[in-house]
Amino acid sequence: MTFTLAQRAHKMNPSVLREILKVTDRPGIISFAGGLPSAHTFPVDALRQASDKVLRTEGRSALQYAASEGLPALREWVAQDLKAHQGMRVSPEQVLITTGSQQGLDLLAKVLIDAGSPILVESPTYLGALQAFAPMEPVVHSVACDEQGPVPENLRATLVQLGHKARFIYLLPNFQNPTGRTMGEGRRQALVQVAQEGGLPLIEDNPYGDLWFEAPPPASLCSRCPESSVYLGSFSKILAPGLRLGYVVAPPSLYPKLLQAKQAADLHTPSFNQRLVVEVLQGDFLARHVPTIRALYQQQCQAMLGALAQEMNGLGVRWNRPLGGMFLWLQLPQGMDAAALLPHAVARGVAFVPGAAFFAANPVQENLRLSFTTADETQIRAGIAVLAQVIQDHLPC
Amino acid sequence: MTFTLAQRAHKMNPSVLREILKVTDRPGIISFAGGLPSAHTFPVDALRQASDKVLRTEGRSALQYAASEGLPALREWVAQDLKAHQGMRVSPEQVLITTGSQQGLDLLAKVLIDAGSPILVESPTYLGALQAFAPMEPVVHSVACDEQGPVPENLRATLVQLGHKARFIYLLPNFQNPTGRTMGEGRRQALVQVAQEGGLPLIEDNPYGDLWFEAPPPASLCSRCPESSVYLGSFSKILAPGLRLGYVVAPPSLYPKLLQAKQAADLHTPSFNQRLVVEVLQGDFLARHVPTIRALYQQQCQAMLGALAQEMNGLGVRWNRPLGGMFLWLQLPQGMDAAALLPHAVARGVAFVPGAAFFAANPVQENLRLSFTTADETQIRAGIAVLAQVIQDHLPC
Repeated sequence: MTFTLAQRAHKMNPSVLREILKVTDRPGIISFAGGLPSAHTFPVDALRQASDKVLRTEGRSALQYAASEGLPALREWVAQDLKAHQGMRVSPEQVLITTGSQQGLDLLAKVLIDAGSPILVESPTYLGALQAFAPMEPVVHSVACDEQGPVPENLRATLVQLGHKARFIYLLPNFQNPTGRTMGEGRRQALVQVAQEGGLPLIEDNPYGDLWFEAPPPASLCSRCPESSVYLGSFSKILAPGLRLGYVVAPPSLYPKLLQAKQAADLHTPSFNQRLVVEVLQGDFLARHVPTIRALYQQQCQAMLGALAQEMNGLGVRWNRPLGGMFLWLQLPQGMDAAALLPHAVARGVAFVPGAAFFAANPVQENLRLSFTTADETQIRAGIAVLAQVIQDHLPC
Repeated sequence: MTFTLAQRAHKMNPSVLREILKVTDRPGIISFAGGLPSAHTFPVDALRQASDKVLRTEGRSALQYAASEGLPALREWVAQDLKAHQGMRVSPEQVLITTGSQQGLDLLAKVLIDAGSPILVESPTYLGALQAFAPMEPVVHSVACDEQGPVPENLRATLVQLGHKARFIYLLPNFQNPTGRTMGEGRRQALVQVAQEGGLPLIEDNPYGDLWFEAPPPASLCSRCPESSVYLGSFSKILAPGLRLGYVVAPPSLYPKLLQAKQAADLHTPSFNQRLVVEVLQGDFLARHVPTIRALYQQQCQAMLGALAQEMNGLGVRWNRPLGGMFLWLQLPQGMDAAALLPHAVARGVAFVPGAAFFAANPVQENLRLSFTTADETQIRAGIAVLAQVIQDHLPC
């Protein structure tokens, strides 16, 4: 080949998840694999009316080039919303609208990671973040976690071990992808304290925070250390991912560099999509809409928990009880390999994601991620029954 | 500050153009500065009807996550269009839909540039490309150009001087930004031959190619060396930039790495926008629509050329006659500095872009870029008269 690839290109790899998702597109498959919101939650009619209005009343502006920072009205909405729901005091000037929050991870990687820079992640963590960071060639260190996320003592030990050179820690405090776990108030306080003492910046990713079942999660990490943290938010799970709208909130010391990276990356996020969402958000739309998503996911999560209790009885399988979000995390009996189980499950019409994909190092083979968003209750019950059967058939002797 | 910036972040700089564009937003300013298409050319009604139809008939799919490669129907349309209009034999499998063609530049930079890699550009060249390449820390070499672009002998000499280590040459053959110049058939043949002999891949950027006045430009560079070239296209100038839709066409040897970079960058380009455009493209829409853009820009270009001939008489100013596109390139008398002239022009209500911003090295001070797309004919005549007056007032003694 004529082209000489950059070194970093060799560190990019096809996503395991992508390949799995292709399989789950097959008709008749009950998929617990996708990280997709339920399409039934998309406010199609509201978006259709908003689109019509935007193109009628401000079509030419909505279709023209626009500022790299994002639409002022949307930046203001984000600042207000974070104040109301996350206890964050944020100026609209700190909000950068991104093409999905995935782009926020890409921009942060460019601005904060040199080849060889140590960075810290949860174990396991969001695969898309590992993929966004990888091209900038960090050395990724996983902090050992329990059912609430990183254990503060482990974080402190890791910081010492790295001579306090880590560029940041990447955290998903609410209904984490892939585990569905949530950090309690005490864990948040302890982690922020260790980070502050160690001079460690935080990147807080919160795509699922609004999807709580019984009560909102504790205040964001960033609200506790605004000068040394960056917050990532998204409209993908409360409106629709196909619009690709997310945002980064950064302190004034970091914002200009992220903005320059944003401008070089795609000039700006589609102005039409931004205006569409500003229009749809009018009249406190989310206050009516988001509770319907919460109710649906809670119901489906309950159905999955019920089916697991019924079907997995006696198999030595364990799982958590998420307080919100889209995922739960299953642990197979010691010695079983979720990846080896997957083809057998798919052959019988059920898909999931083996947990190993989400570990930056030392993957655990026994875990798997189950999404309860896209299958309905009947499918959930049927799918879990099949999964139990497949596990039964492959139990270690 | 808590954050430690990556080395590359220090190579990112605020865009001169951005700052200039802010000034030109002032009411009453006649702006020849923006690289914006005329908002009068946006097919607002067609997009409104398409949006309504997409959300009525396939709303849930249009709003869901989608494949990183892009929508199959749009990739097929692009392949067909390139065959029909650029003489390119391209499989839809080679088409990667991007969030504007600016993102194509960002992905190519990630995949092809190591810190210190030599890359080649025209002199002058598109500023946004320099900004997209900069974070990956290339050493940028400018190839000396004439009124048709890079001079083949200069390219050959540069390749020899660099020991044939250049990663690629970035070229805009049609109605180049900033100069408006076009490579003739002979120049294309000669440049491709030198590149092929020197093992040099080409990146061909063609956002303006459809905007010809009298006749389409010669066949694309990529059609002449498909295995060692990458083609960038855009819907920004033939539909609307606010949708942020572009594409990269890459040979099978390179495509998978660009796809992995794309996935990490923003998962996929908004699926709603892709379906909207597929819908609007039905029934050979562009065959009716694009000629209206060509006619408008040709008329405004003629108005500018007429005004220049009338107003600049005797001032020692020179300019080219673009065969299409959005820009023309003015050369002030020797010793005049376009950047120094700008504040005086803005004070009198006229804006342009000093040419120096577009040079990777050794900026020429005497040039300026004039866009003829967004000002109407009356504004063009008035603006050029003011510009002539400002030049007159600042002529070197």
